[in-house]
Amino acid sequence: MRIMIMGMDGYLGWPLSMYLSARGHEVSGVDNFTRRRIVKEIGSWSATPIKPIEQRIKTYEKVSGKKVTFYSGDLTHSDFTDLVIKRERPETIVHLGEIPSAPYSMIDVEHCNFVQTNNVIGNNNILFAMHNHVPGCHLLKLGTMGEYGTPNVDIPEGFFEIEYRGRKDRLPFPKQPGSWYHLTKAHDTNNIIFACKIWGLRSTDIMQGVVHGIVTDDMVDDDLLTRYDFDEAFGTALNRFCAQAVIGHELTPYGKGGQTRGYIALRDSMQCLTLAAENPPDEGEYRVFNQFEECYSVNDLAEHVVKIAGESGIEVKIWNIENPRIEAEEHYYNPDRELLPKLGFRPTNTLDDELRMTIPKLTQYKERIEVKRDRIMPTIRWKN
Amino acid sequence: MRIMIMGMDGYLGWPLSMYLSARGHEVSGVDNFTRRRIVKEIGSWSATPIKPIEQRIKTYEKVSGKKVTFYSGDLTHSDFTDLVIKRERPETIVHLGEIPSAPYSMIDVEHCNFVQTNNVIGNNNILFAMHNHVPGCHLLKLGTMGEYGTPNVDIPEGFFEIEYRGRKDRLPFPKQPGSWYHLTKAHDTNNIIFACKIWGLRSTDIMQGVVHGIVTDDMVDDDLLTRYDFDEAFGTALNRFCAQAVIGHELTPYGKGGQTRGYIALRDSMQCLTLAAENPPDEGEYRVFNQFEECYSVNDLAEHVVKIAGESGIEVKIWNIENPRIEAEEHYYNPDRELLPKLGFRPTNTLDDELRMTIPKLTQYKERIEVKRDRIMPTIRWKN
Repeated sequence: MRIMIMGMDGYLGWPLSMYLSARGHEVSGVDNFTRRRIVKEIGSWSATPIKPIEQRIKTYEKVSGKKVTFYSGDLTHSDFTDLVIKRERPETIVHLGEIPSAPYSMIDVEHCNFVQTNNVIGNNNILFAMHNHVPGCHLLKLGTMGEYGTPNVDIPEGFFEIEYRGRKDRLPFPKQPGSWYHLTKAHDTNNIIFACKIWGLRSTDIMQGVVHGIVTDDMVDDDLLTRYDFDEAFGTALNRFCAQAVIGHELTPYGKGGQTRGYIALRDSMQCLTLAAENPPDEGEYRVFNQFEECYSVNDLAEHVVKIAGESGIEVKIWNIENPRIEAEEHYYNPDRELLPKLGFRPTNTLDDELRMTIPKLTQYKERIEVKRDRIMPTIRWKN
Repeated sequence: MRIMIMGMDGYLGWPLSMYLSARGHEVSGVDNFTRRRIVKEIGSWSATPIKPIEQRIKTYEKVSGKKVTFYSGDLTHSDFTDLVIKRERPETIVHLGEIPSAPYSMIDVEHCNFVQTNNVIGNNNILFAMHNHVPGCHLLKLGTMGEYGTPNVDIPEGFFEIEYRGRKDRLPFPKQPGSWYHLTKAHDTNNIIFACKIWGLRSTDIMQGVVHGIVTDDMVDDDLLTRYDFDEAFGTALNRFCAQAVIGHELTPYGKGGQTRGYIALRDSMQCLTLAAENPPDEGEYRVFNQFEECYSVNDLAEHVVKIAGESGIEVKIWNIENPRIEAEEHYYNPDRELLPKLGFRPTNTLDDELRMTIPKLTQYKERIEVKRDRIMPTIRWKN
């Protein structure tokens, strides 16, 4: 299948490109290196020393014998987006090409507007280019479980049947996102639903849990490593804890640490995205997959990391610090997870087994984390 | 009260400025004349010959003895928006400064992106400036009943209490907007809810029905007329029918004409916005008002116009043309309308009585409508 990966140079984009290519798909991709630039802007870097995309692709071609096509450009430029989609005529577009950080979006008005414009306009341009050139193409769009917030009812996969004052309808489940970034994903969702309705496009909107880990089977050469962020803006909960453990920094759940979310290992995110790509929705269909393995509270995660780090002789403490975010710290949380398992999704490892791979791997890059130690603790506050 | 009107030069903004000023409020306003520019872009103009804002204000000062302050600038420039709000320190901001046309947003990818960026970023900049300088200010934000779409259940005012799988919550009512423009209003809504939550801002989000009419009591001089659009992009259903009647053009409901919406007269939109401004929500409160008088199908409206035009000897026929939009043409529609009546809102006139003022007034500008006759029939299609 011809698959185009928007955000090919990113944490998910690069390993997914190799994963899909290794399965025999014809892979092309786009990136404008925004992620590299903005992680640098906030003074941090990837724990893993990542290679330029050209070198990644060259090494991958050498070890695999497979070819991957890359375009450097900005999805918010509609002419560029139109051109690459017209040229590649993808059957599936995996859209991972958005800015993924809640704290980054909360810095100030300029960062808020940059993230909202970048994400919404890039996504719009993909929708229009699909409509113009490949109306049968499947848009596999990365959203986030964070779009839902923490309602006091179960979270279905995108839609729910309700009875209200004696009448029934199937409606989009209401979104209550918790940052300017999370809001962009809800805006995208609304825009995509509309495009599917008026143009008959097909899309799977992936409400993904927090991704963790670093190892996938395709990273057989250090040139092929993906990035691993651990700073306050781009490091997500579990990855940040692993990095903290490696340098002997306290693990720092925010507030009471009862915030519960869905989590998924990097390798299983690849598995799920591939299942979705290989089982597309019907023409005009918009569907939602809740993509995660298990739900954990932030405190749970910290305890898992303490235990597994301890097995390697790393002693580390938990320190619940003041929460820089505004969010419920104790709440009901029960999202559905039915559709991907129905397509065959099975988590590869337990959380502990995955941590047993992540922590030792990360230990190789201990010095790079140590150098940026001062970028871990939160300084960006929601009240600012 | 110090009230700042974003979009002061617009169809609603100008009459509201006079209305609030006449009631003794201290009125300032902002516009960058986008509306004048884009109506010109699509080759049309206002049926009424409108004066430049400076002349409007000068004449208004002469006839009323009241002063109105105006700033020319673009709300999407965060520095500008921050500066005017810092300088005026409004107690209420009425945000009417967005691009209001569904068809205009549907022209192509550039128009879609322009409308989405213009509306969302302008609104974000207001939220940040309020947070920075006037956190107690009330944001009275113009949304649209079109955010809701046409669900098969009653439409509450913004939120609904639901029971789902045995648990209860009060959730935002799901939005199903029907154009790139309508989507911007849903994006704004989500952004505003978040700002109220994290910063304790207060806001009333007005889900307004389609506004019609032209006469308000303050327009005592022709310099004080508001604009009246009748073209395919900026002319809304009822106003377009009145303009068609005046030049003897068939009234053109789209498709079956069973599309049902809420409608409100211009004078009553002023009444409602004033009630909302003078009865602000609590600190941190986000509330929604459904702002309309009655619901009509498009066919109903056409029949009312035929009847009232007939009273002035104008004979006009109804011609149901192919629908350029993608929308349900027969559907359930039952929105709540409780909160504004509780604050004292009473429609001033019946629809027919309002039409008895609109049609003769518009007849004065028959030639200006005639000249742009070819801009009335729809050419912008949702499928395009």
